[in-house]
Amino acid sequence: MNTSENRMIEENQKLMENKFYNDILPLNRSGWLTTEMFIKAVVDLLLEFIKETNNPNTKVINFHHPTELIAKLDLRIPINPTSLQKVIEDCKEVLKYQVRTGHPRFFNQLSTGLDLISMIGEWLTATVNTNIPGGAISNLYAVNAARHYMFPRCKAIGMVETPNLAMFTSEDSHYSIRGAAALVGIGVDNCFPIPVDEKGKMIPSKLEEEVILAKKNGYVPFFVCAVGGTTVYGAFDPINEIANICKKYRMWLHVDAAWGGGILLSKKHRHLANGIEKADSVTWNPHKLMGALLQCSACLICHEGLLFQCNQMCADYLFQQDKPYDVSYDSGDKAIQCGRHNDVFKLWIMWRAKGMNGFEQQVNRLMELAKYFTEKIKKTPGYELIMENPEFLNICFWYVPKNVRHLESTEKKARLDKVAPKIKAKMMSSGSTMVGYQPDKDKPNFFRMIISNPATTYEDLDFFIEEIIRLGESL
Amino acid sequence: MNTSENRMIEENQKLMENKFYNDILPLNRSGWLTTEMFIKAVVDLLLEFIKETNNPNTKVINFHHPTELIAKLDLRIPINPTSLQKVIEDCKEVLKYQVRTGHPRFFNQLSTGLDLISMIGEWLTATVNTNIPGGAISNLYAVNAARHYMFPRCKAIGMVETPNLAMFTSEDSHYSIRGAAALVGIGVDNCFPIPVDEKGKMIPSKLEEEVILAKKNGYVPFFVCAVGGTTVYGAFDPINEIANICKKYRMWLHVDAAWGGGILLSKKHRHLANGIEKADSVTWNPHKLMGALLQCSACLICHEGLLFQCNQMCADYLFQQDKPYDVSYDSGDKAIQCGRHNDVFKLWIMWRAKGMNGFEQQVNRLMELAKYFTEKIKKTPGYELIMENPEFLNICFWYVPKNVRHLESTEKKARLDKVAPKIKAKMMSSGSTMVGYQPDKDKPNFFRMIISNPATTYEDLDFFIEEIIRLGESL
Repeated sequence: MNTSENRMIEENQKLMENKFYNDILPLNRSGWLTTEMFIKAVVDLLLEFIKETNNPNTKVINFHHPTELIAKLDLRIPINPTSLQKVIEDCKEVLKYQVRTGHPRFFNQLSTGLDLISMIGEWLTATVNTNIPGGAISNLYAVNAARHYMFPRCKAIGMVETPNLAMFTSEDSHYSIRGAAALVGIGVDNCFPIPVDEKGKMIPSKLEEEVILAKKNGYVPFFVCAVGGTTVYGAFDPINEIANICKKYRMWLHVDAAWGGGILLSKKHRHLANGIEKADSVTWNPHKLMGALLQCSACLICHEGLLFQCNQMCADYLFQQDKPYDVSYDSGDKAIQCGRHNDVFKLWIMWRAKGMNGFEQQVNRLMELAKYFTEKIKKTPGYELIMENPEFLNICFWYVPKNVRHLESTEKKARLDKVAPKIKAKMMSSGSTMVGYQPDKDKPNFFRMIISNPATTYEDLDFFIEEIIRLGESL
Repeated sequence: MNTSENRMIEENQKLMENKFYNDILPLNRSGWLTTEMFIKAVVDLLLEFIKETNNPNTKVINFHHPTELIAKLDLRIPINPTSLQKVIEDCKEVLKYQVRTGHPRFFNQLSTGLDLISMIGEWLTATVNTNIPGGAISNLYAVNAARHYMFPRCKAIGMVETPNLAMFTSEDSHYSIRGAAALVGIGVDNCFPIPVDEKGKMIPSKLEEEVILAKKNGYVPFFVCAVGGTTVYGAFDPINEIANICKKYRMWLHVDAAWGGGILLSKKHRHLANGIEKADSVTWNPHKLMGALLQCSACLICHEGLLFQCNQMCADYLFQQDKPYDVSYDSGDKAIQCGRHNDVFKLWIMWRAKGMNGFEQQVNRLMELAKYFTEKIKKTPGYELIMENPEFLNICFWYVPKNVRHLESTEKKARLDKVAPKIKAKMMSSGSTMVGYQPDKDKPNFFRMIISNPATTYEDLDFFIEEIIRLGESL
């Protein structure tokens, strides 16, 4: 490198020291130059890594024991945001200790090598970040762990000696709970839906009734799924009351907080999920409310060692116990999957950059945007809220075109059911914005607005409200 | 852009038109400049995409019906390699039609926005490409689909009315088959291991014996897993003979070709997997032999519609049927997962770049390298092959240090069991190369060499042979 190049790098570094995640896109729409510089700095690191990896004289591994790595790498999440320069340094540090699986002298696994065409494919996939949502596997982990906790013999001998098991879940819960019931051999018919109230929250007394009924019918109730943020309405079930019923009847409490779990980052709003600390297991998708790239899904289980007992198959040929380091750090045998895509690094590096405070502000701001949007459509002719005061970031509403507003109920319903799909089709053709719709029970198709993108502004919401009118007014 | 910048871009384009995947790293070790230029050209496209996405005036979606997209995008895999310029154009085309989930006016799903710190985290993860292998979920799909095929009522009512099911799998098969048995409620004890011969291949007569015995014991045999490339020895089971037994006893034939499936790309070597075309389902991991980035795992099922019947939960609120396009292209309800990471784009773009011929050459070359390695260690003092003539890319061997060579059998075995872990520990400390080891039944710890990195050269193999001697000779 020549002197002027060196000077440029130094200057860039100085600049990055005073820049933070909210100085670049998407939060700062005029921050393009800094954004470009930041991304290119990371790309330079990655290019360097690729170049080194392809040099046979580079070490395949820069070996350190797990405890040494923990001492060398600062993995903590700070309270305040970290500068972009520090983010770049974090990346640099992490790269230092990677096993170079792409090195031509790495023969340790079945998949070796680093194909650069495939790599740019993966970069592109990450950048477009499509195909969502995704906590289904986490819910499967929970159902499986709960069964193992109560009926450990089932792992070896199957369901032959297991009594008829009953699961209970909010009728508004995600379909993956029923999917898990089918997959593990319990059956979807034995996964009983519990009614919700007019706010979409599970009714605890109904849960208890169903549990008593199931017992009467010879079932063993063993698993309850409460939801922390339902898919359509964003409702939080009353977890504390549900936890009491679980305790009384000795059932596993799972909270599917795939969507709503991120609310815990906000001191102001975390009360929505009160009681979640009593759960046996929690599903949480940082790729939803926290905005980590797809996908990033966790199943937190508060029975230490259970996942090992439940899932390990003791495959000696993969999980050797005579390795030169402390094998208690090896987590492979805990998982249903064998190898897994590394989904956690992006969350860690983002959390470092934002700090606890940055994330708290992000969640609080989204809640403010949602409130603004709700208040505004209340005052806008043609808009009708499904629920008067949504408590979370889902705002469900009908848009009622002028000619439909004064129709009588049955005809209005029939007409409304066609309105949302028509507006959505026009919206997709014009490409101006995108929002989902669905029917629910006796409610005809309605829109479900989701405010989870921290880059969204008040102006974007104003635009959205006008755009629906433009597309739908004359329907 | 000024004139000189424009000229530079044009010149780079011309350059890329005459360059191919094997002109850059990892295959061409002196191709750094072209490599850098290629990656930076793609990064420029991605940066442009990010910039546009953050402009509220950009279309959120550039809507086209699935059939229109198929007409616009050339998705075919060519016979001959595609130029790097074409690869860049492919990326550009694909970016054009993406739904911009990071656009501030995209409100369609629970996860929205494009966090750039998270994004660079994902780019880094892709580049280091760690955490391997990974066809476990594909095997789970197969077991579940097979059960549904034979006992469709189980989805609704669980295992209560299902007879005692028996599964059979090579004793050398991947542990995920047993894991799937546990998870779906069949039980690992009901997954019977079938002995293998001295080459690590399942013995068909033993399979038939076990099936008959299971029937006698009141089981319903329903599933057989044959392996196309075992994890340790790389053995291919005799699929044709196993298929005949499956047909005779009406069992589902699954072939776990996670590792060996890529051999089908080579006309010269595909005979190893003869009979695979008779399977009901096949697991195939393009991230292993084909070198796609982690992870990329497919479960191919040859019963049309079965995956839908088996896995769909009819979640209307997610999979609307009144969409403005042909919903038969929606594959969401086929999967056990709900959202999934896009694992296929990187495979497609790589396959385009290499063409059928490029991949065939890649596989053939790996087979040649493996043969070279085998022949060379046969002639090198201290090396002892576990199997005389490995048929695939796994070469299993002991390295016997000088002082151990002339010991009597029992003592030699005990000493050898310690040798491989010791060499591996020294190897990791020096960082010079990496290779796996494991014991198997009565065999003490031995090394398993895997040749799957197309960047590996004959010189790298020579180095490896010398390095083991250097580290282990005096043990």
